[in-house]
Amino acid sequence: MTDVRIRKLAIFGVGLIGGSFALALRRADAVAQVVGVGRSQANLARAVELGVIDSIAADAAEALAGADLVLVAVPVQQTERVLNQIADHIEPGAAVTDGGSTKRDVIAAARNALGARLAQFVPAHPIAGAELSGVEAATAELYRGRTVVITPIAESLNEARTRVAQAWLACGARLVEMTAERHDAVLAAVSHLPHALAFALVDMIADRADGAELFSFAGAGFRDFTRIASSSPEMWRDICLANRDLVLAEVSAYRERLAILEQYLERADGPALERMFEAARTARNAWLRTVKS
Amino acid sequence: MTDVRIRKLAIFGVGLIGGSFALALRRADAVAQVVGVGRSQANLARAVELGVIDSIAADAAEALAGADLVLVAVPVQQTERVLNQIADHIEPGAAVTDGGSTKRDVIAAARNALGARLAQFVPAHPIAGAELSGVEAATAELYRGRTVVITPIAESLNEARTRVAQAWLACGARLVEMTAERHDAVLAAVSHLPHALAFALVDMIADRADGAELFSFAGAGFRDFTRIASSSPEMWRDICLANRDLVLAEVSAYRERLAILEQYLERADGPALERMFEAARTARNAWLRTVKS
Repeated sequence: MTDVRIRKLAIFGVGLIGGSFALALRRADAVAQVVGVGRSQANLARAVELGVIDSIAADAAEALAGADLVLVAVPVQQTERVLNQIADHIEPGAAVTDGGSTKRDVIAAARNALGARLAQFVPAHPIAGAELSGVEAATAELYRGRTVVITPIAESLNEARTRVAQAWLACGARLVEMTAERHDAVLAAVSHLPHALAFALVDMIADRADGAELFSFAGAGFRDFTRIASSSPEMWRDICLANRDLVLAEVSAYRERLAILEQYLERADGPALERMFEAARTARNAWLRTVKS
Repeated sequence: MTDVRIRKLAIFGVGLIGGSFALALRRADAVAQVVGVGRSQANLARAVELGVIDSIAADAAEALAGADLVLVAVPVQQTERVLNQIADHIEPGAAVTDGGSTKRDVIAAARNALGARLAQFVPAHPIAGAELSGVEAATAELYRGRTVVITPIAESLNEARTRVAQAWLACGARLVEMTAERHDAVLAAVSHLPHALAFALVDMIADRADGAELFSFAGAGFRDFTRIASSSPEMWRDICLANRDLVLAEVSAYRERLAILEQYLERADGPALERMFEAARTARNAWLRTVKS
């Protein structure tokens, strides 16, 4: 990756996503200097100790001086606040990207905050690592072979798009470009909906008077089905709010599918149940083969 | 386990459940002779090769001659047929158990089939190993530390209950006794419902025109959430039919819980979403600690 050479990378939010981005670019020898900004000085000091960042910037102005790449990797609800802080300090020729799980809201925030610098912003979503958090979990390998969705806006400059794409490629990721609307719809179906369903199931059982006894008979299937219900409640609240209309549409569609399942059960329709289960198994196993290859 | 000594164990259906039972009892030196009966001669021959059974019985009469313990480990829908075959051959003093995932239907089948031998039947459900199948997957370790639910009926003789309990204990299992009604309700909540939900989600996505693209953005969370949707469609059809009223009640209850989630989303109620997600995470993590200890 000798064609990517970032002089100075500024990271806002040095956690799993930001830290892994820095480590991956360092390993690829694609970056000369990395500075971090964040609300927790203890976390930033740990990031220096771990060799994730070279130094801590006192503020956005210091962080962005000379920076040709900026990553905003804070919780989605804080993105606009951070973009407001950096707007006046983004250097000409610098590119700004992010790691948010939803994209329409991030773009709306960028339109509000960045003014004349909007064209330097290239939104991205690395599909990786949601169940861990913190700089301690950061690794140079997090993005290897994983998909990063780029959702450029009409205004995005080619130069900025290229720099952002090359940086994610240098991390070992596979890039896919789509609109923010399509991204949010796809993720609502295959990520946000399953998380909401897992939370809702565990919540329902925990809420019962005999919840503790019920849990004591749960096995490996239940454990895997609900693993994502151990994810961060704050993060998933924010994702559900940021992508509210599309998550709502998916929950509604799923409730309708369950109504069909209820009909099959009501009329004891074995063939219909088996067809539904068989279609699911066939589709899942076909998908798994593509994942493994 | 020198206090358990089974002279002859007869197994109907030598797959994962039956084969593992035989291997675990052999390892505990708790059984002298094991014979198998089944519809596939090739599978039974393989079971002999693997040392799971000593010999293949030609029919129920041959299998049950001298047998003091009988395990019926066939798919639940076939239980009554097998119990009819064995009813006239069960020796006085022998105990009969099973490995079915639902218990009210198995007991109804036993009442229909066993006549005067009903008191020798002690229904059981080992909560283990649903995602694998076949004698090749059988292992002496399958039941170690796992829960086996015993659902004795009023008629069950103490001698039969003791022999069945000692056999499962010799396999390394933890025993819990409850009524068949309670068993079926508990499993509907923590096993049958999650399976139905996972099948329904994958089926819904696979059914869409853009299903293949949606799957291509599914990550590790989706993979784990849907793992149980790769289970046997026939087996889960049968479980859903056998436990139909209780599975239906759980699917309905879950749909109501999703309706609440939809309300939270509709009114963009962040605190309510976070409370639901946090309650789920707290309950799941508390449960995980009990599983690991």
